[in-house]
Amino acid sequence: MMAKASGNPKPKPKKKMIANLHHAFNPESIAIIGASPTPGKLGYIMVKNLQEGRYAGRLYPVNPSHDEVLGMRCYKTVEDIKGKVDLAIISTPAPAVPQVLEQCGKKKVKSAVILSSGFSEVGLMDAEKEMLGIAQKYSIAVVGPNCLGILDPNSRVDSFFFPTHKLQRPKPGGIAIVSQSGGIGVCIIDLAAFLGIGISKVISYGNGTVLDESDMLEYLENDDNTQLIVLYIEGIRDGRRLLEVMERVNRKKPIIVLKAGREAGACKAAHSHTGNLAGNYLAYQAAFRQSKVVEADNLMTIFDTAKLLSQPLPKSDRIGIVTNGGGLGILAADAVEKRKLPIAQLSQESLDKLRTIIPMHVTPNNPLDIAADSDVGVYEKAIQVMMDDPNVDLIMINVLFQAPKIDERIIDVLVRFSDMHLKPVMVVGLGGGYTDIIRRVLDGKGVPTYSEPDAAANAIRMQVDYADYRRKARAMTVPVRKR
Amino acid sequence: MMAKASGNPKPKPKKKMIANLHHAFNPESIAIIGASPTPGKLGYIMVKNLQEGRYAGRLYPVNPSHDEVLGMRCYKTVEDIKGKVDLAIISTPAPAVPQVLEQCGKKKVKSAVILSSGFSEVGLMDAEKEMLGIAQKYSIAVVGPNCLGILDPNSRVDSFFFPTHKLQRPKPGGIAIVSQSGGIGVCIIDLAAFLGIGISKVISYGNGTVLDESDMLEYLENDDNTQLIVLYIEGIRDGRRLLEVMERVNRKKPIIVLKAGREAGACKAAHSHTGNLAGNYLAYQAAFRQSKVVEADNLMTIFDTAKLLSQPLPKSDRIGIVTNGGGLGILAADAVEKRKLPIAQLSQESLDKLRTIIPMHVTPNNPLDIAADSDVGVYEKAIQVMMDDPNVDLIMINVLFQAPKIDERIIDVLVRFSDMHLKPVMVVGLGGGYTDIIRRVLDGKGVPTYSEPDAAANAIRMQVDYADYRRKARAMTVPVRKR
Repeated sequence: MMAKASGNPKPKPKKKMIANLHHAFNPESIAIIGASPTPGKLGYIMVKNLQEGRYAGRLYPVNPSHDEVLGMRCYKTVEDIKGKVDLAIISTPAPAVPQVLEQCGKKKVKSAVILSSGFSEVGLMDAEKEMLGIAQKYSIAVVGPNCLGILDPNSRVDSFFFPTHKLQRPKPGGIAIVSQSGGIGVCIIDLAAFLGIGISKVISYGNGTVLDESDMLEYLENDDNTQLIVLYIEGIRDGRRLLEVMERVNRKKPIIVLKAGREAGACKAAHSHTGNLAGNYLAYQAAFRQSKVVEADNLMTIFDTAKLLSQPLPKSDRIGIVTNGGGLGILAADAVEKRKLPIAQLSQESLDKLRTIIPMHVTPNNPLDIAADSDVGVYEKAIQVMMDDPNVDLIMINVLFQAPKIDERIIDVLVRFSDMHLKPVMVVGLGGGYTDIIRRVLDGKGVPTYSEPDAAANAIRMQVDYADYRRKARAMTVPVRKR
Repeated sequence: MMAKASGNPKPKPKKKMIANLHHAFNPESIAIIGASPTPGKLGYIMVKNLQEGRYAGRLYPVNPSHDEVLGMRCYKTVEDIKGKVDLAIISTPAPAVPQVLEQCGKKKVKSAVILSSGFSEVGLMDAEKEMLGIAQKYSIAVVGPNCLGILDPNSRVDSFFFPTHKLQRPKPGGIAIVSQSGGIGVCIIDLAAFLGIGISKVISYGNGTVLDESDMLEYLENDDNTQLIVLYIEGIRDGRRLLEVMERVNRKKPIIVLKAGREAGACKAAHSHTGNLAGNYLAYQAAFRQSKVVEADNLMTIFDTAKLLSQPLPKSDRIGIVTNGGGLGILAADAVEKRKLPIAQLSQESLDKLRTIIPMHVTPNNPLDIAADSDVGVYEKAIQVMMDDPNVDLIMINVLFQAPKIDERIIDVLVRFSDMHLKPVMVVGLGGGYTDIIRRVLDGKGVPTYSEPDAAANAIRMQVDYADYRRKARAMTVPVRKR
């Protein structure tokens, strides 16, 4: 897995650089080095996105060839700026980067995002090495190069130079994204915004020359806004350290990892992408299992799982299934059992209560089919029974939103149960436009929704495993009194 | 798998009943038995949906308690109607159904959809048996009971009594849906409409007392509008016949089947849903494998696969991957290789040509990364190379639609390649709102799109297997000349 082992203690500048990442996400001022007055150019979009994105701090365009950019004074070099600079976003050609970074160092700039490509990913190592030396000398927290940089929906720092009408920006929330690939970072951001999922920070770190995935995890470990971390990696340099960091951080905040370049041909492709060797997948897999991080196979699984891992962890794994569509209940049971999850045995009290709630022509059971002719009131009472039953740990509600007797009032009911934070509650809505709108409203209100039972059951399996791990990890750290 | 074997020749009335299904889908006139003038009632929605859905034939409301329904004369019984009646949609209470069906028989009604429930699914067998006898006596093609009936986007027959604002109706197309469960039928219709997928016919057959899943397949075998059949089943009565029919029909038109009630708890739930025993899943699975139908695990897989199976079948299984997002290319290669599909080795001619097309900083290869700074023109030329290369059988295009240089002109390019019908072309678009809109446009124009590489690769695996089977089946039926 690793190209180089690092049992040594972390060098001091590293710690300071990681700490300095704070300034990248919360800068009082940003210098845009490579700013441009020409619409369409990267250096133009960058300034415009920050202006339009309502970043509240100071912006300093820097470019020796221009005097003004988008109505602002443009500086020849970063050193010409009078005030302090917390973050430099650099998009100059690769050969100029070391010199620019040196100027940043002299100016005491705390952090830099280097978007420029043309380094080790195309076989040019020298400029990259030089850059690393400069960053260490001045303790500059450097993200990149060959990346799209950072995005923080809270401070509105945004170095993703993709047009906002094509790449939506997500709302603030508890999920941090760390992506080696800029493009995949884009897909994740865009999808999160589309699904109404809140994001704390996005880091596209590209070649990770100065700060790599492990450093980002260390930073996010102590970031108050981050509750869960999504990590997309292709190939890494220091496997032992990543394993160590994942193990520690995952005990506090769940980490969901997607490793690309698992197979032979994909691995080759990864090499020419970010210049890293994707390496032997089996070694990665072993590290994921040892550190108990959640491994996802694809991007939809990341979101499906992240939504549920943002909920309270279940006490155990017994699932209650409620539905107003008989077929949905059967598919839900199939999906749950396929993943070796137990369908809860409802208590006699629950069964007796249900008999008085659901229509005469259906039998109280789990999966509980309240039938398509039941209204929102019946749904509410039925879910309450599952909520009260001590045999049920998670509740999966499969709503046939199309049923004539179900109306929008179901939204309030589902949100209320979810907001109790007593048991994880998830909603499956299978259908078209109407169902899609209801799902988005629910997701936006923090109720995890799924496109079908199979996707929900997959997420449950991962949440249950993580909950189990956390219980065990906690048990181990608690002093044992009885023997 | 089967509760009863049927080696015997099909009884004659069965053949006539199957033929009479034609009148159910193309009726010159429909009697709505149980019609109601009260808004919200099933018998009201039924008439209103047919009126508003622009069904062009004659409508006859029937209900002894009313004289007028929605401005139309309401008849006491079906026999009071002067003109001929091709289809009766019956929603009277279960005990009244045999009498009503008898009247239909006397009136020479060719087909009936019986929506009413309260038969064998709740343990009441007698009325159902009586109904079967009457249907056979008069050769009435009966769909149901305990179902939502039929929908035909061409003739606009529609017995699905769900409100149109919650349940969208799909456009006409080549895919037929046969579903034992009404609710799952609803989900499939709604999703198809949402995804822009064209449908030939939908049949929710419920208890399948008179005509069952095998009869529906036999009917669709010769339906000119149907190119592909989706089958959702929970439990069936005559396994041997289904196997026989699936085997024969699947050789002409691909069948995608989703079997619910695979696991123990789900199986129990299935029994109380449509009164059928879900039976031993292993026996079903064996039958699916023997007949070479495509088995899907969930509903998204059905659509993902159906879209690709509606394309020309590939000559072999070698995949060309094109992308403007490096990470997407790696994920695509992973997804393809995970399913044991070969990544095509591009010809030297292709590699030489690509060298002149793609930017200098990337290397021609497969997966082919044309880089995020390429525009639509580069995409077009790159896809053309894959189209011309004899080593490539299928082309998977992973578009980072968010990239600043990609604009809407990409739609025309993708549609043009797909419309050549030379090789299956599929498009992966991973993102939010903008990407979603482009995907829908493409799907609507018959270009299969996918939410991520993993979903596309899964569909390719199924299409490749089906193509392989069709080639072998054809080879077996062609007289062998050389030994």
